[in-house]
Amino acid sequence: MLTDFGMADGYVGVMHGVILRINPQAIVVDVCHDVPAQDVQAAAFVLSTTYPYFPDDAIHVAVVDPGVGSERRAIAVRTQRGTFIAPDNGLLSYVFAREAVSEMVHLSNTRYWLTPLSATFHGRDLFAPVAAHLSLGVPLAEMGAPLLDPVRFAVPQARRQVDGDICGEVLHIDRFGNLVTNVPGIWLAAGQPWSVHIAGRDVSGPLQAYALAGEGELLSIIGSSGYLEIAVRNGNAAATLGVSRGAEVKVAQRLR
Amino acid sequence: MLTDFGMADGYVGVMHGVILRINPQAIVVDVCHDVPAQDVQAAAFVLSTTYPYFPDDAIHVAVVDPGVGSERRAIAVRTQRGTFIAPDNGLLSYVFAREAVSEMVHLSNTRYWLTPLSATFHGRDLFAPVAAHLSLGVPLAEMGAPLLDPVRFAVPQARRQVDGDICGEVLHIDRFGNLVTNVPGIWLAAGQPWSVHIAGRDVSGPLQAYALAGEGELLSIIGSSGYLEIAVRNGNAAATLGVSRGAEVKVAQRLR
Amino acid sequence: MLTDFGMADGYVGVMHGVILRINPQAIVVDVCHDVPAQDVQAAAFVLSTTYPYFPDDAIHVAVVDPGVGSERRAIAVRTQRGTFIAPDNGLLSYVFAREAVSEMVHLSNTRYWLTPLSATFHGRDLFAPVAAHLSLGVPLAEMGAPLLDPVRFAVPQARRQVDGDICGEVLHIDRFGNLVTNVPGIWLAAGQPWSVHIAGRDVSGPLQAYALAGEGELLSIIGSSGYLEIAVRNGNAAATLGVSRGAEVKVAQRLR
Repeated sequence: MLTDFGMADGYVGVMHGVILRINPQAIVVDVCHDVPAQDVQAAAFVLSTTYPYFPDDAIHVAVVDPGVGSERRAIAVRTQRGTFIAPDNGLLSYVFAREAVSEMVHLSNTRYWLTPLSATFHGRDLFAPVAAHLSLGVPLAEMGAPLLDPVRFAVPQARRQVDGDICGEVLHIDRFGNLVTNVPGIWLAAGQPWSVHIAGRDVSGPLQAYALAGEGELLSIIGSSGYLEIAVRNGNAAATLGVSRGAEVKVAQRLR
Repeated sequence: MLTDFGMADGYVGVMHGVILRINPQAIVVDVCHDVPAQDVQAAAFVLSTTYPYFPDDAIHVAVVDPGVGSERRAIAVRTQRGTFIAPDNGLLSYVFAREAVSEMVHLSNTRYWLTPLSATFHGRDLFAPVAAHLSLGVPLAEMGAPLLDPVRFAVPQARRQVDGDICGEVLHIDRFGNLVTNVPGIWLAAGQPWSVHIAGRDVSGPLQAYALAGEGELLSIIGSSGYLEIAVRNGNAAATLGVSRGAEVKVAQRLR
Repeated sequence: MLTDFGMADGYVGVMHGVILRINPQAIVVDVCHDVPAQDVQAAAFVLSTTYPYFPDDAIHVAVVDPGVGSERRAIAVRTQRGTFIAPDNGLLSYVFAREAVSEMVHLSNTRYWLTPLSATFHGRDLFAPVAAHLSLGVPLAEMGAPLLDPVRFAVPQARRQVDGDICGEVLHIDRFGNLVTNVPGIWLAAGQPWSVHIAGRDVSGPLQAYALAGEGELLSIIGSSGYLEIAVRNGNAAATLGVSRGAEVKVAQRLR
């Protein structure tokens, strides 16, 4: 489960209860519940960094749902790397960009929901019970009609310019203020120095480990998601540079 | 488990350990650990919104315990909707108001506690091990003597005035600043407009979904707990209105 | 698992996924993920207060790892009270001070890691998979070569002066601002008054329960970890006294 519900109110706990009431054998994992409130893009990114590490038969329930109660649909998506249940608001955009979808339905069969459906908490009333029933082996096709046109946002792609420099942007800012860009680490030649231009500053790299940077120093590194990251040793790169998601990044690497 | 221990110190984690040491098969769910510190009423409300969704054989361990180490008793309460273990300080008031109690004991049999009992952490030394032993099938009657006079606070009830208007109050403020009142949604006629008077403001309703309100706009809605709620789209209603728990609410609904 | 990763980014969730992918039967407990960032000493203390309460066959994965990606080693340590996996940076100092080590290895066998190993997230790529493989029964000796010289810091010990007074220091400050000292409760005679001198103030004790102190009053008590603690009823002792970890504490107890 991945949500923006926080842990202060029991919203997450009650979803555990709903699932265990339907499937007492279910193993429920709290992936992350402190996604910035209503931030679908941040949730989509966090999901993209976590689902590949789970068992392929895992059911990923992601609920960041500013449109709850409106006409937005709820969807379930089957891929070889897992099944995904989410509001149809772009939360699965990275999944769509990376995985082949074998089955996709609009969750509309109220038989698998709690009733009455509340106007404000489909995590409890729809997404959790659907996940629990799926974990018991109910076929996805039972849950609703096939769906072909899910909402998705374009995942911004880095591109290489004619002069060889790479143009990208900041995809995600984590809670430490580290900037995760969309520049794939494999685009950069191993062992060769590079220079990252961002917010009027030049940051050289690669650094092999955070610990090798000076205190408060800007550094760039291939991060754990496989992308170029900009960080400050024991500091906050987003604050230091005054940048937010979408900020432009340029990387130059002169091969020797 | 529902506590005000937070996740910063290992207080919750150690309770998991205590339970698993006694019953390695136990499934332990963290319902919520960020109840405002020492706020028994908030904990009682959160518990009331979560326990009904768990399996009926669940054991609910709720520890918000400003009186730890004093003469306050520890209690266990059996109902058809679950077993509850808590300090005897009113935390189970909503449970008492809603469920028939089939058995209730003062937890006094030290055989099921960790020893020595600390003065400050009965969550670890008393509530967790008692829950674990109960989950193994130890009868409640083994845990202590019957109890008849638990501490409970009156759950404030909304009332309908002679003129048909409803008088209620704010029961709970969640971490988003949403105001949950004690006005039952089923007292309001479906599909008919109402007007909520609170803190000198009038808020019309019902709204079908948060997404239908304008940014920063006050709205009222039947919330996920089945009560009338006042919220601000992408904002904090408690701060906007300057109200706290107990604030008076009046609802007028002129049927057409 | 005990880390400083917080719950905002999925770093903890992904470790659950890695473990369950290797051992779907594993029971994974989140002990604490809000250790102050990079604070190895705080993590070492929290670990010391939690591991004794877990089953003796538990595998404790502790990752507060400012040196990730550098030459610092990763280690695994077997004791009668559990198996511990951590970066070799002093995080296990309390364990070394208290438990007899039966086996200790430098985790170097890449066969049990995820590959490629990231530079920044060994929690996911090394510590979690090693723990999962251990839980499946892989012998520790398979994981790497024996190790004899782990990094450890001296756990500060209280001492009794010639005049009978006890000299100690603040070992840990919890999220409530309570000061946990290194003065063992068993050094203080039961039922006899004492006086704690700290930051120019004298705090008398013992108090039997927090609830017996006045609002905002400084108090001293034998805390849940068995050590003398200084607290403020419904307040923050660290802020009230302006002290931090390592602050000197003197305790005088005149026996009657």
